[in-house]
Amino acid sequence: MPLPINPPPPLPEGGLRVVALGGIGEIGRNMTVFEHAGKLLVVDCGVFFPEDDAPGVDLILPDFRAIEDRLDDIEALVLTHGHEDHIGAVPFLLKLRPDLPVIGSRFTLALVAAKCREHRQSPVLVEVAEGRRTQHGPFECEFFAVNHSIPDALAVGIRTAAGLVLHTGDIKLDQLPLDGRRTDLAGFSRLGDEGVDLLLVDSTNAEVPGVVPLERDIGPVLDRVIGKAQQRVIVACFASHVHRVQQVLDVAVAHGRRVAFVGRSMVRNMGIAAELGLLTVPDGLLVDIDEALALPDHGVVFVSTGSQGEPLSALSRMARGEHRQIRIRSDDLVVLASSLIPGNETAVYGVVNGLSRLGAHVVHQGNAKVHVSGHASAGELLFLYNAVRPSNVMPVHGEWRHIRANADLATATGVPEERVVLAEDGVVVDLVDGLASISGRVEVGHVYVDGLSVGDVGESTLSDRLILGEGGFIAITVVVESTTGRAVAPPTVSGRGFSDDPKALDDVVPLVEMELSRTEAEGISDTHRIAQAVRRVVGRWVAETYRRRPMIVPTVLPVGGP
Amino acid sequence: MPLPINPPPPLPEGGLRVVALGGIGEIGRNMTVFEHAGKLLVVDCGVFFPEDDAPGVDLILPDFRAIEDRLDDIEALVLTHGHEDHIGAVPFLLKLRPDLPVIGSRFTLALVAAKCREHRQSPVLVEVAEGRRTQHGPFECEFFAVNHSIPDALAVGIRTAAGLVLHTGDIKLDQLPLDGRRTDLAGFSRLGDEGVDLLLVDSTNAEVPGVVPLERDIGPVLDRVIGKAQQRVIVACFASHVHRVQQVLDVAVAHGRRVAFVGRSMVRNMGIAAELGLLTVPDGLLVDIDEALALPDHGVVFVSTGSQGEPLSALSRMARGEHRQIRIRSDDLVVLASSLIPGNETAVYGVVNGLSRLGAHVVHQGNAKVHVSGHASAGELLFLYNAVRPSNVMPVHGEWRHIRANADLATATGVPEERVVLAEDGVVVDLVDGLASISGRVEVGHVYVDGLSVGDVGESTLSDRLILGEGGFIAITVVVESTTGRAVAPPTVSGRGFSDDPKALDDVVPLVEMELSRTEAEGISDTHRIAQAVRRVVGRWVAETYRRRPMIVPTVLPVGGP
Repeated sequence: MPLPINPPPPLPEGGLRVVALGGIGEIGRNMTVFEHAGKLLVVDCGVFFPEDDAPGVDLILPDFRAIEDRLDDIEALVLTHGHEDHIGAVPFLLKLRPDLPVIGSRFTLALVAAKCREHRQSPVLVEVAEGRRTQHGPFECEFFAVNHSIPDALAVGIRTAAGLVLHTGDIKLDQLPLDGRRTDLAGFSRLGDEGVDLLLVDSTNAEVPGVVPLERDIGPVLDRVIGKAQQRVIVACFASHVHRVQQVLDVAVAHGRRVAFVGRSMVRNMGIAAELGLLTVPDGLLVDIDEALALPDHGVVFVSTGSQGEPLSALSRMARGEHRQIRIRSDDLVVLASSLIPGNETAVYGVVNGLSRLGAHVVHQGNAKVHVSGHASAGELLFLYNAVRPSNVMPVHGEWRHIRANADLATATGVPEERVVLAEDGVVVDLVDGLASISGRVEVGHVYVDGLSVGDVGESTLSDRLILGEGGFIAITVVVESTTGRAVAPPTVSGRGFSDDPKALDDVVPLVEMELSRTEAEGISDTHRIAQAVRRVVGRWVAETYRRRPMIVPTVLPVGGP
Repeated sequence: MPLPINPPPPLPEGGLRVVALGGIGEIGRNMTVFEHAGKLLVVDCGVFFPEDDAPGVDLILPDFRAIEDRLDDIEALVLTHGHEDHIGAVPFLLKLRPDLPVIGSRFTLALVAAKCREHRQSPVLVEVAEGRRTQHGPFECEFFAVNHSIPDALAVGIRTAAGLVLHTGDIKLDQLPLDGRRTDLAGFSRLGDEGVDLLLVDSTNAEVPGVVPLERDIGPVLDRVIGKAQQRVIVACFASHVHRVQQVLDVAVAHGRRVAFVGRSMVRNMGIAAELGLLTVPDGLLVDIDEALALPDHGVVFVSTGSQGEPLSALSRMARGEHRQIRIRSDDLVVLASSLIPGNETAVYGVVNGLSRLGAHVVHQGNAKVHVSGHASAGELLFLYNAVRPSNVMPVHGEWRHIRANADLATATGVPEERVVLAEDGVVVDLVDGLASISGRVEVGHVYVDGLSVGDVGESTLSDRLILGEGGFIAITVVVESTTGRAVAPPTVSGRGFSDDPKALDDVVPLVEMELSRTEAEGISDTHRIAQAVRRVVGRWVAETYRRRPMIVPTVLPVGGP
């Protein structure tokens, strides 16, 4: 049962407190705050991409309120990897604490640096790598290599006087990763020998049985699909999935095709990856889009953004026939070498249908094995639990269905049920004397970014948007004499988002006039009360006549008077 | 490439014309019109449940415009089965032609009759069954048993002087269906021997490799899941999936549980099914909800609607803790024995998360084999093509990605590529001298039902709703002297769906006042021009200040004057 808001008692001396400001009970905006001996350590600071319930919103941030009075107590921000749901909100936190040390691996920090440049920030970056230990106030961090769908991901062990915590970040256990950098299960076992008091575990795929297929199994599929194509090939995937792109480049080389990157983030990230030696690009392989368009059809692969159906992305524009340079032709081959993130299905299939309608042949994970997930499935999580043998477990990074499935896995490996803490954002978990338990709950809301401003769009604005989006509005403007409340002109009525029929609101003017006669007769001159009366009568009329619920917006203007 | 609108030439004598008014290029609102010798035959008349691009809309109907001048030429409406996407729009067509004979199987017509009663209609119903032949003007229909996720489904063969057409309706080839009523592949083979000139085929699962598992394989899974439950069980599935419900009832009996149906359509449809002998209900098994709540937890199964996350359904209310009678408790078991229709993922997972958060254990097709599809996968479609051996093929019932995949299957079985017609709604296909080809295209739009009215909500209203839903609006009301255009009072500014900050629009009043001084100084008194000026200046301000695009709604009221 959801807990009520209930600020926790002071943390007992020698204890460790854990609060997620995002990322539990949802997939996205991961941010976990650890507190010990009066100091704070933050792990990750990501964004959430909003869904239908937050229309018009660009991003959702973690709610910083729980720490805004204690910004100076934060010793460091540790980033596990460079995905947006782990680093996207960094500039917003740095706005509050520009000097906050940001700890991460080389590739992660390169992406953070690029992001901060766009926000005109120069953060304090501290590069670490697997095997390294760092001290931040009372927190000693130890970093472990982790395999995920982006290079250079890390798990972090956190040692304090309260005990040893391991936070996996996003993780999977590919046993033959392309770069040979496996998740350090041996390191986790060593920690397990030492005794892990609390394990925070990625829950994303906890419901999925078995293990994720190998990333390297994608290569042969791409080779077969692209190899037999006579025509142009467009591959869409995540702009940070360096290994996936590497496999596309390898296949392009094998079949004598050159490669053009399409989309701003793809160009930028692959530039960074190549510079850091994470992406191997043979000389002369890359061409720009215009050069690519001049090549014969069988001589080119476009590697594009837009695999999630983002409406402004390159691929969506192609699907609508609106891309400035690339026009889809009959028999183009498009490969979506990407996941289908829940919530994006309609957008992605819209793109697939648009491309199919234009004649393209579309290969996606629904009809070919061109994608594997970046998150450990149930079978892998069992390996993880058995290596770490934690005393307490806290599933993170997941919606409720994932959190519960992950908890079941923990208990199946022998963690006592009462030692598995089912939290969600804002739930305060204290580790005291080796036992983790819930001690309270602080308020963690949604912080919306819409355009240039942060936080001014809240639940009331969104609820208005939902009403307007479903039913439009009917606006009635009335000018009354301020002393008598008598209408000095006929009411003006207009509707938007209500009907295409120009006569749809014809009955409203006489209706409002009748109501105004009534209010005048009753001696009502207060504009607020007149507005209420107008709203009520029009609302009732539209419900009875149309069985609809547009927003009713009366404006009553007083004129004249003494 | 999409065809332009281009009315076809007159149908050559002895030819057959086929136009889908819905159901090709989309999944839903299936309706196909056949024309021969000056007469029309309509197969199916369903609705489409709208997605994000049609906010506030309840239903989308097929566009009847192409036949509205020829209503008297329609000989009959043939219904293949009783799903909403095949029968939902029948009352709307009957409004135009109340005496139109409606042809269908017993269960299909029972559902149609119930639907028409709600619309106060008494349609002319003509019951048929597999093996029957009927004559409707120049169309001879022959009906074939078809297996699908609803009982009593039919395929229809249509014989005219132009040739023999077979329309599969929705179909799969379960070889061991619960009721023993297999898709009549032998009958299709006999038609194939005779020579099928045109085959219209269900494309829904054409992208899915292999064959759909047997419906009867669900039973043992339900038995295992429900059998080991100690607590209450709630099973959600489609209210028309009689065989799925039958398996739940059988499991309930086996484990000494009684059953309560929850949700209006579940109660109604299972009543009809039991009455027609399609659902076997042991005496004393059924109880109503209140009786069920008085039973011990291990003595009851609720069978509920809401498997698609419909917000007003019983299950959604339970997930939000708002159901009047059933409160989810820790350790309730909820089984979603249902598909996840594309587009509903967010809603369905929202329900799963809500239930999980309240402590329920949720089993769904993502973590157990509690659902099989009602539509033939690629492997089954191959059996179908090889049985029918059609001269021409027209994939139907699918989005573009499904249509193309189905076309590939047809050619793989030896249908020449040029004999596979890729149409979409409104594309006119003529079968002349045994060859099917596209002869033109008529306009087929979306007809929206919103509340009580049909058709007055169109693209312009929806586009306004999308703008309002994303950004809200800013309304500015100005009262000017009609002759001079001079403002007689300060402008009134209000926003809805724009910001929670009460000061967000404080700068607008002086901005508008400045603009009004300008228009007055330029001698502009035309209210329309003043409104334009206000819209422009406020729109520019909001774009620069907030980088947002709310709707700007200026109202300029003239007062006074001679």
